[in-house]
Amino acid sequence: MPIDIHLLTPITTRGLRDTAPFQALLGDDIHLSHSLLDRGPASIESEFDAAMAVPDIVAKAISAERAGAAAIVIDCMSDPGLRAAREMVGIPVLGPAETAMHVAAMLGHRFSLLTVMDRGRPGKENMARLNGLDHRLAGVEAINIPVLSIEGARDEVTAALVAAARRTVERDRADTIILCCTGFSGLGVAVEAGLRDAGYPVPVIEPVPTTLLMAAALVRAGLAHSKRAYPTPPLKPMIGYDFLDASGRLPA
Amino acid sequence: MPIDIHLLTPITTRGLRDTAPFQALLGDDIHLSHSLLDRGPASIESEFDAAMAVPDIVAKAISAERAGAAAIVIDCMSDPGLRAAREMVGIPVLGPAETAMHVAAMLGHRFSLLTVMDRGRPGKENMARLNGLDHRLAGVEAINIPVLSIEGARDEVTAALVAAARRTVERDRADTIILCCTGFSGLGVAVEAGLRDAGYPVPVIEPVPTTLLMAAALVRAGLAHSKRAYPTPPLKPMIGYDFLDASGRLPA
Amino acid sequence: MPIDIHLLTPITTRGLRDTAPFQALLGDDIHLSHSLLDRGPASIESEFDAAMAVPDIVAKAISAERAGAAAIVIDCMSDPGLRAAREMVGIPVLGPAETAMHVAAMLGHRFSLLTVMDRGRPGKENMARLNGLDHRLAGVEAINIPVLSIEGARDEVTAALVAAARRTVERDRADTIILCCTGFSGLGVAVEAGLRDAGYPVPVIEPVPTTLLMAAALVRAGLAHSKRAYPTPPLKPMIGYDFLDASGRLPA
Amino acid sequence: MPIDIHLLTPITTRGLRDTAPFQALLGDDIHLSHSLLDRGPASIESEFDAAMAVPDIVAKAISAERAGAAAIVIDCMSDPGLRAAREMVGIPVLGPAETAMHVAAMLGHRFSLLTVMDRGRPGKENMARLNGLDHRLAGVEAINIPVLSIEGARDEVTAALVAAARRTVERDRADTIILCCTGFSGLGVAVEAGLRDAGYPVPVIEPVPTTLLMAAALVRAGLAHSKRAYPTPPLKPMIGYDFLDASGRLPA
Amino acid sequence: MPIDIHLLTPITTRGLRDTAPFQALLGDDIHLSHSLLDRGPASIESEFDAAMAVPDIVAKAISAERAGAAAIVIDCMSDPGLRAAREMVGIPVLGPAETAMHVAAMLGHRFSLLTVMDRGRPGKENMARLNGLDHRLAGVEAINIPVLSIEGARDEVTAALVAAARRTVERDRADTIILCCTGFSGLGVAVEAGLRDAGYPVPVIEPVPTTLLMAAALVRAGLAHSKRAYPTPPLKPMIGYDFLDASGRLPA
Amino acid sequence: MPIDIHLLTPITTRGLRDTAPFQALLGDDIHLSHSLLDRGPASIESEFDAAMAVPDIVAKAISAERAGAAAIVIDCMSDPGLRAAREMVGIPVLGPAETAMHVAAMLGHRFSLLTVMDRGRPGKENMARLNGLDHRLAGVEAINIPVLSIEGARDEVTAALVAAARRTVERDRADTIILCCTGFSGLGVAVEAGLRDAGYPVPVIEPVPTTLLMAAALVRAGLAHSKRAYPTPPLKPMIGYDFLDASGRLPA
Repeated sequence: MPIDIHLLTPITTRGLRDTAPFQALLGDDIHLSHSLLDRGPASIESEFDAAMAVPDIVAKAISAERAGAAAIVIDCMSDPGLRAAREMVGIPVLGPAETAMHVAAMLGHRFSLLTVMDRGRPGKENMARLNGLDHRLAGVEAINIPVLSIEGARDEVTAALVAAARRTVERDRADTIILCCTGFSGLGVAVEAGLRDAGYPVPVIEPVPTTLLMAAALVRAGLAHSKRAYPTPPLKPMIGYDFLDASGRLPA
Repeated sequence: MPIDIHLLTPITTRGLRDTAPFQALLGDDIHLSHSLLDRGPASIESEFDAAMAVPDIVAKAISAERAGAAAIVIDCMSDPGLRAAREMVGIPVLGPAETAMHVAAMLGHRFSLLTVMDRGRPGKENMARLNGLDHRLAGVEAINIPVLSIEGARDEVTAALVAAARRTVERDRADTIILCCTGFSGLGVAVEAGLRDAGYPVPVIEPVPTTLLMAAALVRAGLAHSKRAYPTPPLKPMIGYDFLDASGRLPA
Repeated sequence: MPIDIHLLTPITTRGLRDTAPFQALLGDDIHLSHSLLDRGPASIESEFDAAMAVPDIVAKAISAERAGAAAIVIDCMSDPGLRAAREMVGIPVLGPAETAMHVAAMLGHRFSLLTVMDRGRPGKENMARLNGLDHRLAGVEAINIPVLSIEGARDEVTAALVAAARRTVERDRADTIILCCTGFSGLGVAVEAGLRDAGYPVPVIEPVPTTLLMAAALVRAGLAHSKRAYPTPPLKPMIGYDFLDASGRLPA
Repeated sequence: MPIDIHLLTPITTRGLRDTAPFQALLGDDIHLSHSLLDRGPASIESEFDAAMAVPDIVAKAISAERAGAAAIVIDCMSDPGLRAAREMVGIPVLGPAETAMHVAAMLGHRFSLLTVMDRGRPGKENMARLNGLDHRLAGVEAINIPVLSIEGARDEVTAALVAAARRTVERDRADTIILCCTGFSGLGVAVEAGLRDAGYPVPVIEPVPTTLLMAAALVRAGLAHSKRAYPTPPLKPMIGYDFLDASGRLPA
Repeated sequence: MPIDIHLLTPITTRGLRDTAPFQALLGDDIHLSHSLLDRGPASIESEFDAAMAVPDIVAKAISAERAGAAAIVIDCMSDPGLRAAREMVGIPVLGPAETAMHVAAMLGHRFSLLTVMDRGRPGKENMARLNGLDHRLAGVEAINIPVLSIEGARDEVTAALVAAARRTVERDRADTIILCCTGFSGLGVAVEAGLRDAGYPVPVIEPVPTTLLMAAALVRAGLAHSKRAYPTPPLKPMIGYDFLDASGRLPA
Repeated sequence: MPIDIHLLTPITTRGLRDTAPFQALLGDDIHLSHSLLDRGPASIESEFDAAMAVPDIVAKAISAERAGAAAIVIDCMSDPGLRAAREMVGIPVLGPAETAMHVAAMLGHRFSLLTVMDRGRPGKENMARLNGLDHRLAGVEAINIPVLSIEGARDEVTAALVAAARRTVERDRADTIILCCTGFSGLGVAVEAGLRDAGYPVPVIEPVPTTLLMAAALVRAGLAHSKRAYPTPPLKPMIGYDFLDASGRLPA
């Protein structure tokens, strides 16, 4: 019976995420399940957006665990709700930003993030610092193409990513690159080729598929989060969330 | 006209918080307004509880700013929603944990937190690290008296706090103490006296009144949060929060 | 009865410091007292100058406490004598550099200092590191206008400060600014406006008035320095300081 | 065709390492190849032992890559030769200590290592610091049973490991455990059960199988080490290593 | 012509410091000159004492340089006036605490300080942090024998030092010891022997002679402090120091 | 009888190292002995080269100690084999990179390394971090002249070093320079003069002679490495190293 890895896309916008390439990557032994939010933001571009997503992220994480998922990956580079979800379920919950940073630290000496807008930089720097990887973070480089324009402009986006990657490799001495936006999905190979053509042998990490594979590896290793670090919260009344019952529990 | 400082208690339980002592402390020049949540947890004891409080914290922060508040203090030692609220309003938003740690760093060399339960320790250590104060955090010491029992057991709680403070002063070389629970409100003087009787001249910080005073000082200094560090989020559809309109905006 | 906050200007040059704007800012509840040194340097531009100021800073701090001051602010961005004065008095002693850095850390993500000359940079970096704020210090930017020329060139200095602030905001990603020289007093509003006109919503901290307000807040909160961190020194003969008696004590 | 992951056991002692359980864990899609050293130490208990193993580790890594391996795991908790091997091959080379520390940082808040002897502690602390994880390292706890006695004393070793794990969980607040010796192989489940019986829900990481799974995940993600961080060395004469030809190259 | 190394004992108490053993250690090629203060404290036990010593430390440093000294060592474990003296002279100025910490970091993995009283601990921790060696500082252990009693109680002090060293070796895993008080002079060999008898092969650093030797090594290497890091201060009026002329200069 | 300091040049290429200037610097009281490797790389330009040098470095260190050396300096800026050699001998073993960084930290505020090629940068940054000096490392600046061309191009190399030093002084605010290549030997005075001519009073450290002098100072101070930090390894079979006997011991 295949292992079920659950990809939790923490927005309410339908139709943006195609999971077929991930399923192909994971192979036959792993089944990829998927959910979107019923309540929350259309997209995540701020700490506020992320915060508004968390209540339903936790609900969806509980549902996924009940449905038999062996691990959960939150499909957003802000890693929203990572700690709250870890408290509420027993299976591993991974965030692509945290995971990609640890992987980058194992692959090279200094990594940079390529992103859409500069405004997420303090959040990313805080995340690196919490994980002890601030001395490995070479830079955060924005391509300044509006998110909604990314879909229809793959060539332009790829060129912008290669240019941004070169800038941070040359100026910040980055030797490893993380593609830090869901919209860049599938462009890793092209960016890596673009860097290689410029003389830079630099790996380019696509965080979501990498994190799905890491989640499957943890499941096979029999590992989950420490419930001593993320203890289950006591139940209590939780007003205003109609998907919870009076004691704050998600109905079965 | 007095300055309006808004105390935002991020739980739905009525009647626990008496703001009269804070108003007396702030004096006539400052008016203390107060709100509780309409949607959220009965109390905050976990990352999950904190996350469930944030959507209405942000709503109440927006309302307070519209009603003329000059600054907001979030009345919880987890500082829930601090960054999201800073994005959504232009007035200063302070958390008592972050503020008390910075004040403690100015008053002494190493500070310890006295708390109710040990489970909040990773969150507090992360907060210290993000603020660069991890090398100043001497310890986190729990008194292990259930929160609901605190109200009716002031003497017992005071004795437990003095004992816990002595432990961390002697074992961890703490020289400054932070009372890290709303339930300890008003006990600072007694704990400080207990330590002095034991030969330890150690200041004891009550975070909420200290933070209210700091907020008033910032207002008088004409200072607010950097909107470059906490930029206003773009508006977007936000499903499932009936207090927001279709564009994600709080109705006037 | 108003609280007495004492501003201790640690130089011997008369007439430079006008305390009237600070008194206006502090309001009727707070009385601002003021002293200059009788022994020490004409101005402070080096570690040597700062060291030569400290003996009389401590004497003036003891005198201020005896005269009824509730707190002391040392009026120099090198924070000279901060630790020695904290040992010798029981009331809070604050330095504007240390205080402004902690305030900046609460208002934004990364702060820069604007200063007159580049030579103070190692001292400022050491101060940030001791306070755990080195990862928040974006830069130190000098305007290179001689101190003695500042008084008569307010427009030129303001323009230079706005230009320096823009440089560090754009190049170092500073989102909060600290005016790091007494000579810049009163220019904060103009620098903040200049940055806003350039599209940067960045708070500008004037350290001395901000620190006076923080000192008043600490007094109202009933807080003082930890005498366990700054214990009173044992008395002993102290040769060559005629303002001390034979046992090293300041005569009453 | 299955992926070939190569386990490189960096000692010359035959017969100690049974790879069958690892092959079972990896499944049919992955083929586990294995090598021991022809030149080097009988076991690794010091920096000297580790250094004497490195020349043949690099030779075996080159041979494994030539034979078609997709990734290499060095089978020793000192991670000997990690950087030198990464320079000399293009496929991923992982060390179990570095990998287990990053995994532990993702699973909990603070991890401890259980080891045989105390003398390896500085090396482990240095490794944690280089990876930015020193603030996550709760402790290093030795069981003080001679390595050669471990094989025939599984029950005694398990009991000692459970006791050591409890000590570091209780005293150092570890919430995640890493079994830091090849001799502890297969005991993770029993140690985790022993901790659970004592009331501590703490994951126990067996580094070698976990690292084999991580290596397979990296291969599937198309990732390898950054050759910009680990550039291929220039060829040059290398005297005294008869397995290299005159130009320092390993003969085909 | 022998090199002149100047030992500057920053107190006014005559007769305590016997330099003969240091001269013997330095050999014929080095001449040890010596000075005490004319103005300053009888001994240094606080930040205040240290601050009161600095003006005359700088004066004596200038005099020593004028008299032909090739380097200066400040004979106190608080390193008072180190930075101010470096600004005012061109020859190397070393402090025994800073130097001993760097030497300890080269000799072992973690070092502890043995001292007389616990009150100096924050100052020592700050010094370690400024030099980046806080992660190497295992502990500060006080023997609690009054300074004035040390002279007449060598056997008792030695026994107390061995006991304190054992405590920090066993409890804090120190592997290198620094004797952090002038009064312990000459006891290093006995403490090292006491530790060896207890099974601990741990070097014991006597900071002052070690720093004198390091100063001589710097002189022979042709090295002095960076005047870019410690630039010469501008001259200015300095009131109340009768040993300076009207422009703040030490008369020739 | 003079002290014997042993310079261990860890390459097999004869004739490159002239020790006469070092002997002159050390004076009559110190005798400089010297060895090269019999087995190992022709030069050290990578982690692989360094690793291949270590087995014979340890052998030569043991031989030097047996021959009466009082201390050993490894003559390479990668400090290869430092920890392994410290385990195997009882006399001090110093590396010029580690030593020069600690000396630079005592002479200035921020230091930069001048090197030949950029590829050694991660190794140097790791070394600085292990020693706690990463916050003092301003930069690593390569001159990009092939090593083999350095010998015959002293003027060109000097000019390139002065230019590189100016770049890092101006751009990175370095105030202390370390010449980080054996090929730059003897050029320190010229580089220091070049910087002084450009207005920068910056000391330039030549690591090898400085480290030889530091080693002599340690010997005179009676100090050696902590055998508790670097314990002697247990003897064991070591296959493939014909200079060791069957028990892994170097024959007498």
